[in-house]
Amino acid sequence: MPGPLEGTKVLSFGRMLSGPYATMLLADLGAEVVKIEAPKIGDLARFASPHIDKLSSYFLSINRGKKSLTLDLKREGAKKVVLELAKGADILLENFRPGVMERLGLGYDPIRETNPRIIYASLSGFGQDGPYAQRPAFDMIAQGMGGVMSITGEPGRPPARLGYSMGDIGASLFTCVSILAALHEREKSGQGQFIDVAMLDSQVALCENACARYFATGEIPGPLGSRHPLFTPFQAFSTRDGYVVVVAQLPEDWKRFCKAAGKEEWATNEKYNSLEARLENYDEYLAEMNALMSARTTEEWIALLDAHQVMCGPVNRIDQVVNDPHINGRGMFVDVEHSTQGTLKVVGTPMKFSRTPCSIEKASPELGEHTEEVLASWAELSEQEIEELRESGII
Amino acid sequence: MPGPLEGTKVLSFGRMLSGPYATMLLADLGAEVVKIEAPKIGDLARFASPHIDKLSSYFLSINRGKKSLTLDLKREGAKKVVLELAKGADILLENFRPGVMERLGLGYDPIRETNPRIIYASLSGFGQDGPYAQRPAFDMIAQGMGGVMSITGEPGRPPARLGYSMGDIGASLFTCVSILAALHEREKSGQGQFIDVAMLDSQVALCENACARYFATGEIPGPLGSRHPLFTPFQAFSTRDGYVVVVAQLPEDWKRFCKAAGKEEWATNEKYNSLEARLENYDEYLAEMNALMSARTTEEWIALLDAHQVMCGPVNRIDQVVNDPHINGRGMFVDVEHSTQGTLKVVGTPMKFSRTPCSIEKASPELGEHTEEVLASWAELSEQEIEELRESGII
Repeated sequence: MPGPLEGTKVLSFGRMLSGPYATMLLADLGAEVVKIEAPKIGDLARFASPHIDKLSSYFLSINRGKKSLTLDLKREGAKKVVLELAKGADILLENFRPGVMERLGLGYDPIRETNPRIIYASLSGFGQDGPYAQRPAFDMIAQGMGGVMSITGEPGRPPARLGYSMGDIGASLFTCVSILAALHEREKSGQGQFIDVAMLDSQVALCENACARYFATGEIPGPLGSRHPLFTPFQAFSTRDGYVVVVAQLPEDWKRFCKAAGKEEWATNEKYNSLEARLENYDEYLAEMNALMSARTTEEWIALLDAHQVMCGPVNRIDQVVNDPHINGRGMFVDVEHSTQGTLKVVGTPMKFSRTPCSIEKASPELGEHTEEVLASWAELSEQEIEELRESGII
Repeated sequence: MPGPLEGTKVLSFGRMLSGPYATMLLADLGAEVVKIEAPKIGDLARFASPHIDKLSSYFLSINRGKKSLTLDLKREGAKKVVLELAKGADILLENFRPGVMERLGLGYDPIRETNPRIIYASLSGFGQDGPYAQRPAFDMIAQGMGGVMSITGEPGRPPARLGYSMGDIGASLFTCVSILAALHEREKSGQGQFIDVAMLDSQVALCENACARYFATGEIPGPLGSRHPLFTPFQAFSTRDGYVVVVAQLPEDWKRFCKAAGKEEWATNEKYNSLEARLENYDEYLAEMNALMSARTTEEWIALLDAHQVMCGPVNRIDQVVNDPHINGRGMFVDVEHSTQGTLKVVGTPMKFSRTPCSIEKASPELGEHTEEVLASWAELSEQEIEELRESGII
């Protein structure tokens, strides 16, 4: 059974991470995604380390299941090819800096003229308008400017970057939601539209709770390490061999925790027996907790706390995630076939459908692997026309 | 002009964050979202601090624009009301622990029987199946188990929680994408389906790059503070009054940075003149960089680096984000009207459409504010039937 977007055609001018992650989701969902790349060089993500032989693991991870078509957008004649391709496309996505597609003659207006039903999504660092529109954007610049770095890390220490590139991927996800909402709207109106999603706006949207707290109190939220702003224990503690998250701030949970840990006296001791008391005597409480928690391994703590119905979970390293039986059972790691590298492993999709499941089977394309195929099927070019494009260096 | 999901009806059993954030996006997009809440108590998020008078800012932030209908799901007679409501709904979303909706008689099977076109999305901590399915999930437990905490924070220090609740919100976004893909598919098939999205799976999907690096090299990724794993400068530096992100790892960028900073000799000095050299002499280089960067304010650095076309950005605190002219110009903070609290500020949406823009106008509903209205219009109950439900305590 094909995925829910089977039959949907996507023209992707996405490069590096934000655009490609968005079209990866569309490909996972069953859409046919054609990735336009510069001849000879391609998406610069192809050069991102580390490599498996000559294949960038970075590129593979977010371009599996796509088709690659080479096209030199700066050459006379390339625009005509794009317009032909756009005629048959449902979605066009690009993540150049604002104005680049217009200068190539491929802005929303000419594309809409050739296909009024197309959904044209522009994903950029700062959006299509406003004073920062032309600023260069990287994931970390968006994380920094959007506020999340100021609330990530330990109090009194430098701000930390989120371990995954949420500056990019946040925008990818909002772009995907927007595209699919526009696709639904098109069923009624028959018309496409232009979508403008910014990495910075997306970070602000994700910071909604920190902003809400600031609006309500005027207090500026800061970083808290792994602590919860209001509750304890509701944080990661160091164990003998790692870290474990313990959530036991409610009175009944705290009692069960104390029993599990063999510290029944803490449930009655007035220094620790209530949340208020623990917060008031936080330094002393934390020192005692740290000493207690570091005496057992993470696995021992999980078994013990589970047995006493105390909410907990390990802080997994990536190797532990990759080898976790539950996560594997959920199909979160899948094998894909590469045209030259054989079978490779990529992360699966969290989107599970009962009737039209996603299937992730093919690896990332070689540069230009599908140029002829797509030009013949989508743009309906003849063999001779394709040969001429090849000779003139446009493809 | 209404949003792209105008006319789409959503029945939301979402509580706290993950479910409500997903249905907030649907409401922002123009869908009519009816939030089912327990009589008298409602969503526990209504009690989450800080409050504006009696209104939880946490609740307001993610429930703006929704309708509230009270219904005691454990009472005889409630199931019939839900089935009547489901008849007219396009989407049902719930984020109870797996099995709860089934025990209430409201699992996918009875709902589908009454409305085969409904998209039924279950958002849970660990998914509907597998050994962890019944484990309790909180944002931080998903962040810990999913791997991101192990790559966030400073090397050699405890893992840090991401400043926003990506354990919840990651799943919200994947759920939204899944729902809208299924809605598109329904146009062709005429059939709805069941969607199963887990917080843990979603974290793994967001960790794709860390997993890809691990698959390629077998090396376990760790936290890097604000550093890039391969490049420098590509990190946040402390300034006289804050932090600034500087991205200047390429030879030409580094030269421009050295010139901007008045350190032309660094561009030729063999200890710093190449990326390899800077990485090799990292400690000495970093000490010199820190001394240099801390001599000016963030604003001074931004002006200077901008003038020399060096990529940079401030690490903004939340108050700076809220007062940023560009972010405000993009409409990322909007006023909403509350039925008793007047005008309140919430974070806007990053999803910008040319033809069917989102409009965020109404604040969060009072508990049960729309019970009668929705029962009369969606479920087509008579005044007398509604009165009977009220008397029996079901609503």
